Amino acid sequence: MQALVYSLPMAHPGDLSALDALIRSGVIEAHEVVAVIGKTEGNGGVNDFTRGYFTQSLMQMLSGHLACSPESLMRSIPCILSGGTEGVLSPHYVVFCRREQDSAEAAPVGADTALAIGLAFSDVLPAEHVGRMQQIMQVAQSVRQAMLAAHIGNPDDVHFVQVKCPCITVARAQEARSRGQDVVASDPNRVMAFSRAAGALGVAIALGELDAAAVSEAVLLSDFSLYSDRASISSGVEVNCCEVIVLGNSRAWRGPYRIAHQPMSDALDIGAVYAVLADLDLPALPQLSAQTLERVAGVFVKSEPDRRGMVRANRHTMLDDTDINAQRHIRAALGGAVASVLGDGRIFVSGGAEHQGPDGGGLIAVIAGADGVRPRRFAA
Amino acid sequence: MQALVYSLPMAHPGDLSALDALIRSGVIEAHEVVAVIGKTEGNGGVNDFTRGYFTQSLMQMLSGHLACSPESLMRSIPCILSGGTEGVLSPHYVVFCRREQDSAEAAPVGADTALAIGLAFSDVLPAEHVGRMQQIMQVAQSVRQAMLAAHIGNPDDVHFVQVKCPCITVARAQEARSRGQDVVASDPNRVMAFSRAAGALGVAIALGELDAAAVSEAVLLSDFSLYSDRASISSGVEVNCCEVIVLGNSRAWRGPYRIAHQPMSDALDIGAVYAVLADLDLPALPQLSAQTLERVAGVFVKSEPDRRGMVRANRHTMLDDTDINAQRHIRAALGGAVASVLGDGRIFVSGGAEHQGPDGGGLIAVIAGADGVRPRRFAA
Amino acid sequence: MQALVYSLPMAHPGDLSALDALIRSGVIEAHEVVAVIGKTEGNGGVNDFTRGYFTQSLMQMLSGHLACSPESLMRSIPCILSGGTEGVLSPHYVVFCRREQDSAEAAPVGADTALAIGLAFSDVLPAEHVGRMQQIMQVAQSVRQAMLAAHIGNPDDVHFVQVKCPCITVARAQEARSRGQDVVASDPNRVMAFSRAAGALGVAIALGELDAAAVSEAVLLSDFSLYSDRASISSGVEVNCCEVIVLGNSRAWRGPYRIAHQPMSDALDIGAVYAVLADLDLPALPQLSAQTLERVAGVFVKSEPDRRGMVRANRHTMLDDTDINAQRHIRAALGGAVASVLGDGRIFVSGGAEHQGPDGGGLIAVIAGADGVRPRRFAA
Amino acid sequence: MQALVYSLPMAHPGDLSALDALIRSGVIEAHEVVAVIGKTEGNGGVNDFTRGYFTQSLMQMLSGHLACSPESLMRSIPCILSGGTEGVLSPHYVVFCRREQDSAEAAPVGADTALAIGLAFSDVLPAEHVGRMQQIMQVAQSVRQAMLAAHIGNPDDVHFVQVKCPCITVARAQEARSRGQDVVASDPNRVMAFSRAAGALGVAIALGELDAAAVSEAVLLSDFSLYSDRASISSGVEVNCCEVIVLGNSRAWRGPYRIAHQPMSDALDIGAVYAVLADLDLPALPQLSAQTLERVAGVFVKSEPDRRGMVRANRHTMLDDTDINAQRHIRAALGGAVASVLGDGRIFVSGGAEHQGPDGGGLIAVIAGADGVRPRRFAA
Repeated sequence: MQALVYSLPMAHPGDLSALDALIRSGVIEAHEVVAVIGKTEGNGGVNDFTRGYFTQSLMQMLSGHLACSPESLMRSIPCILSGGTEGVLSPHYVVFCRREQDSAEAAPVGADTALAIGLAFSDVLPAEHVGRMQQIMQVAQSVRQAMLAAHIGNPDDVHFVQVKCPCITVARAQEARSRGQDVVASDPNRVMAFSRAAGALGVAIALGELDAAAVSEAVLLSDFSLYSDRASISSGVEVNCCEVIVLGNSRAWRGPYRIAHQPMSDALDIGAVYAVLADLDLPALPQLSAQTLERVAGVFVKSEPDRRGMVRANRHTMLDDTDINAQRHIRAALGGAVASVLGDGRIFVSGGAEHQGPDGGGLIAVIAGADGVRPRRFAA
Repeated sequence: MQALVYSLPMAHPGDLSALDALIRSGVIEAHEVVAVIGKTEGNGGVNDFTRGYFTQSLMQMLSGHLACSPESLMRSIPCILSGGTEGVLSPHYVVFCRREQDSAEAAPVGADTALAIGLAFSDVLPAEHVGRMQQIMQVAQSVRQAMLAAHIGNPDDVHFVQVKCPCITVARAQEARSRGQDVVASDPNRVMAFSRAAGALGVAIALGELDAAAVSEAVLLSDFSLYSDRASISSGVEVNCCEVIVLGNSRAWRGPYRIAHQPMSDALDIGAVYAVLADLDLPALPQLSAQTLERVAGVFVKSEPDRRGMVRANRHTMLDDTDINAQRHIRAALGGAVASVLGDGRIFVSGGAEHQGPDGGGLIAVIAGADGVRPRRFAA
Repeated sequence: MQALVYSLPMAHPGDLSALDALIRSGVIEAHEVVAVIGKTEGNGGVNDFTRGYFTQSLMQMLSGHLACSPESLMRSIPCILSGGTEGVLSPHYVVFCRREQDSAEAAPVGADTALAIGLAFSDVLPAEHVGRMQQIMQVAQSVRQAMLAAHIGNPDDVHFVQVKCPCITVARAQEARSRGQDVVASDPNRVMAFSRAAGALGVAIALGELDAAAVSEAVLLSDFSLYSDRASISSGVEVNCCEVIVLGNSRAWRGPYRIAHQPMSDALDIGAVYAVLADLDLPALPQLSAQTLERVAGVFVKSEPDRRGMVRANRHTMLDDTDINAQRHIRAALGGAVASVLGDGRIFVSGGAEHQGPDGGGLIAVIAGADGVRPRRFAA
Repeated sequence: MQALVYSLPMAHPGDLSALDALIRSGVIEAHEVVAVIGKTEGNGGVNDFTRGYFTQSLMQMLSGHLACSPESLMRSIPCILSGGTEGVLSPHYVVFCRREQDSAEAAPVGADTALAIGLAFSDVLPAEHVGRMQQIMQVAQSVRQAMLAAHIGNPDDVHFVQVKCPCITVARAQEARSRGQDVVASDPNRVMAFSRAAGALGVAIALGELDAAAVSEAVLLSDFSLYSDRASISSGVEVNCCEVIVLGNSRAWRGPYRIAHQPMSDALDIGAVYAVLADLDLPALPQLSAQTLERVAGVFVKSEPDRRGMVRANRHTMLDDTDINAQRHIRAALGGAVASVLGDGRIFVSGGAEHQGPDGGGLIAVIAGADGVRPRRFAA
C-alpha cells in the first residue's frame, strides 16, 4: 500500500475543482480517496456551515465519479474540517489517498517506514452521550480499529489522530430533553469543548498515553495535566458519530512520505515548529526555502488560549473578548507563527485543544516527502 | 540628555498603576515623561474608546504629580495608542522619559550614539483636511520639528516615526458638511485609512524617502509603491491634530539604548524580525533567551492584509470577512509571528499600514539595551 | 394561472426537508416551483456561504424530482437569499409556485385581482460592469421582461421586485484587473453597496418611478433622493447575473393571495407596518392574532442604517461599529419591530437598502390570503 | 422631597457635557445628583470598558463641582451602565436628582403619589461569593435598605430595581484561586450570568415575589420559573460590590413623575409596551406623538434570548451565533420593537435577564411626567 497526499486550494467552501481536476486528469482515481482534512473559511463555531457545505460538495463530486450516492460516501470517507482561516491562514484541504500498488513510486526513499493511514467510524452518538464517558470509550475503540486498519501495531508509530466529534445545537438538546435525557451543558460552545475533551482522552487511552482507569467524566475540562500529544479533535453539528483518521509511519506501507510530531509547551513555542521540521530533515533557519517548502505535504497544529489568562509573563485578552471568539484569536496567532517559519499559509490550525497537548500549548504534526521527491502540492 | 524607556503592563485600559508606582518610588520623576506608545485591548476601530480612556487616565494621574491640568498635559505629552491585543499580544505601554543628566547611567555602553527622542504637534486639522494634502504637509513639517528637537540631523539616523492622526466620525463629517465642506470619504474605516496614508507620506517626505513633488492626493491609497519604511501611523477619534514622535540614534544623547528597524516584505517575512534583532546584537535562534529578552525595551510592528488577496501563493480571507475587521486579523497573525521569535507578547503591532513599508508587508523597529545593561522592563 | 406561496422553516442552511415533504406528499409538484426568496443564518456579507449552500441543496433536491441537472435549474429558478437572521428573525424560505389550473382553489375570494409572479435573468455581468450603468440597464430590462411574464401591464400593480445582483470578491477584482479592467471599488462591502444601488435604480426606471435620463453612475450611493419604493436588492458572490422576481396583483391570475407595500420613512416607522396590514384587511392592534397571522404568506422588509448617523433626534452607532456590520444592526432592529407587530419572526428583513425606499428608511411588502382562506404556512 | 429626571445624550462614553451644562446653568445643583442609569456604546461584555470610562468621566466632572474626590463619589452615587446600543438604540444616560424642596414644582399634578428614589450599596463581594448565596442575600438586604431610604413601605409600590453586580475576569478568578477559593464558573460570560441571576433573586426576595426559603444556589440559571418582574441586573468588571437603585411611587415624594412597569411574556410581547404606556396615560396607537414623547423621562427594558431556541413557533439563532454575542442580538431586536412604539431610540435595553421577568421574556418600566408638564428631556 502507498499513501498519497495532496494539499489543494479552494476558492470558496463549495469549490472542489482542484480535486476534481486531479481525478479527471487521471493523477488519482476517485476510489483511492480515503480521507480529507481541511480548513474552510467559516467562524469555526456552532453556526459554521462552511464545513457542511464543503462536505456536501465533496461527496456530490465524488459520487459523480464513483456511481454511488453521496450519502453512502459520507459513511465511508471521513471529511474532517476545521472552520476559521484567520490571519494568514489559507482555505485548503489535504486529500489522503491509498493506492494498492504503484511501482514507479513504491520504493521508499531514505526510510524503511512510510506514511500509513487508518480510518474508523464510531456508532452514532445520541446528544446525551456527547462529552461523557460513552464518547470517550467510543473514540478509544475507534482509534484502535483505525490503527489495525493502518497496520500500525506500536502506538509510538502513531503521530497524529484526527477525530471529528458531534456537538449539540439548541435543537438537538431540546430533542434529548424531550426523551427525558439531559445533556452535558446548555451553552453550545461549552458542549463543543466537552466533546473535544472526551475525544482527546479517548485517543490518549488508545495510544497508551493515559490509563483508562485514570480517566473519568470528572477530569474533562478540569484536570488538564491529562492529555494526548497526538490528538486533534474537532467538533461540529454536521456529524452524529465520531470519525477517526490515524496517521503514522509503518513498514507495511511504501512511498516517499513520513510524518512527525512535537508537543507545543505554550502559544509561543516556536522551538517545537523547528524541532518537527528537523525531525523530517527540513532545513528552516529562519524559514523554509521555496524548494524545501515543496516537500511539505501537510501541516497540522492544535492549540488554544491559555485558560489561566497569561502567556508566559504577560496577560492575554483572548478569553475576555465578547467580540471575537477566543479560538479565532489563537488560530490567527499560531497560524501567523507557524506560517512564518514555513513561509506558507496552507496550514491546518485548529483551536479547541482541550487535553490535546500541554495545557496552554498544543501540538504540531507535519507530513513531508523525502529530499528530492516531487511534491504532491499544487498552487492556488 | 538621556532617554529612558519602560515597558509596562496594564490590567485594563484605565490602569496606570505601574507608571504611578515608578513615579512614587522615585525611579523616575513625573516631569521626565515625554511620550507614551501603547496597545490597549479595544477593537482598534472607530468605536474603540479604550484609547481615550487610557489617555484620560494617564493625564489625570500625571496631573496629580505635576500640579497642572490634564488638559495642558494632553497638548504636551503625545500618548499614541493602538487598539487591539489580538491573539498573544498583551496590553502594555512604553513610556519614554528624557533625563537631563544622570551620571550613573550616562556613559554609553558599546556605542557612541544612543536613543534620541523628539516630539511635535501639528495644528488642529479640520475634518475636511483629513486624508488630504494639508494633512500630508502638516505631518512632514511636524516630523522635521521633531527631528530638530531630537538633535538628529541626518534622516538616516531616524528609525521609527510614530504619528497619531485624527479620523472622522459620522458626527464630525456632519459638522464639516454643515460648514459647506466635504470630507474625503463617508465610511469611517475608509477615512481612517486615508488619514494613515496621508501621515505616512508626510513622514516619507520629511525623511527624504520621497520627493514632495512625487506626492499628491491621487496617490493616497492608490500607488502603494510609494512608502516610508519607518513610518507608523495610527488614526483615532481622540485627537484633532497630528502628534509626532521621532525615535532615532544620536551622538547628542547618552545611555544604553539603541534603536534599529527593518522593512517587512510581506506578512510572512520572519527574516526581517531576525535581521532587526541581529542589528542590535540580540541572539535569537530560534527564540530570544529569557535573559536576552530582558534587554528588549520596545518592539514596534506595522503591517496590514495584502490588498491583492494573496499572501505569497495562497489566498487569504482577511479582506472578505464581515465578522472580523481585517486589521484585527493581521495584528493577530503578525503578533503571533513576532511574539514567537521574541518569546514575549508585549509587542506593539498595529494594522493599517498603508504606505508604511512595502505593499502587503510593513516594518519592524526594536529598542534594546546594550549587553549587560539592566533592563527597564517590568513584569506584569 | 394561480400563484401558490409557502413559507417554510429550515433547520440549517442545507435543510430543504420541508419543501421536499410538500413535493413527496403531492401538495405541490416539483415543476410548479418557480422562485424562492429566503433568509439564511449567515452574516449577510461577502463571506456568507449559507446562501450558496442553501441554493446548492435546493437545486440538488429539485433535480432529483425533475430528472434534470442542478446546473440547468440554477438558470431557471431564481433563488434569492439574504443572509442574517439577527435577533428574533427566523431562518425560513418562501416558495413561489405557479399552477396552470386548480379548479378547487381557482375562484378569487374577495378580489378580482390576485397575486402574480414574473421572472427574468439578465446576461452575465463581468466584474467591471457591477455597480455601473451597464448593470442599471440590465436590471431595468429584466424587470420589464418579468412584468410581461407576469401579465402585469401597469407598473402600479407591481408591489415588490426582488433582484439578486453579483458582487465582487478580491479574486474577481483581480481577474478583471488582469484583463485591464477596473472595478467600481476595491472594498468588497463597498462593491456590494454599489451593486445594490445599481439594481434599485434599474427597478425604479422600469417601474416609471424615475426617468432613465435622471439616472447616471454619479448618483449611485450619492443622491439618495432617487429611489424605488418597491425594489429589494441583494448582492452576493453566488450569482454572476441579475436574477429578477416581480410580484404584483393581476387580473390574469387567480387565487386567494394579494400583495401590498408601503414605504418606510425611517427605521422607526411602525406606522408603515400597520398601514400595509390595513391594506390587506389584516387587523393588528397592537399585534396580529394567531388566527390572522395564519393568513400571512410572506413579509418582506428592506431598510438600512441612516447614513447621517441619526435616527430622528438621536445619534445611532451602527455605522461606527467595527465589531458588528451595520447591516446586521439594522436587520436586528427592524426585524424586532416588524416581528412584534406580526407576532412572528418569519420575516425577510434585508439590509443594504440603498435607493430602496426613502433615505434612512426602506419599505415593507406583505402577501396575505383572503379572510377565511386556509393558509399556505407550515410550522417549524 | 422631589425627584427630578433628565435623559441626556452623550457624544462618546467620556462625554458628560450635557450634565455639566445643566449644572453650570443652574438648572440643577451638583449635590442633587443621586444616581445615573445609562447605556454606553460598548459591547456589553466582560471587555466593555465604555462603562468604566463613562463612570470615571462622570465622577471627575462632579468632583470638580463638589470639591471632593472622585473616589468618594464612586461610593455614594450609583452609576449603573449597560453597554451596547445595538440597532436604533442611542447612547444616553438618565440622571436622577433629589431636591429637598422646590415650591414652584412641588405640587403633584394629577396624582397623589410621585416618583421616589432610594439607594443602597452592599458590602464588597469577594470573587468567590459572586453568583452564590452570599450575593443573593446581600442584594436582598440592600434592596430593603433602599426602600427605606425611598420611604416606600409597600413592595407593590416598587416598580423598578436596578442593581449593578460584580463579575469576575480571568485575573480576579486567578486571585481567588490563589487564596484557595473556587469561583462559580471559569467562563467570564457564564460568571456574569450567575451574578445577574443572584441579583435578580435577591430583589425577588426583598419585594416578596419569592420566599427566601424557596431560593438556593441550585435554582440559579436552572429554575427559570422563579423570577422578579421588577428586577434589572447588570454585571460588570467595574464594581466590586452591588449597587442598588429602587424606583417606585410614594406619597412622601412630590413632583410630576410617576413610574409603571409590565412583565413581557416573550421577545415579541409588544402588548406589554402598549400596556405600560396606558398605565401612564400615554396614548400610543401605533406610536407616541412627538408631543407625548416629550413627557417620557426614562424607558427601561430587560430581556434575553429564549434559551429553548424558539420564539413562539420559530427557531431563532441567537444562542448558536459565534460571531455576535446573544445579548447583543436581543438588545437590538427589543430595542427596535420598543423604540418603534415610542418613536425614540433613547431606551435602556439590557440583555442578560436571567430570572428577570418570565423566561424568554423580560420586563419594561417607564417614567413619565403628567400631561402638560414640561419635560425634563433634552435633545442631542
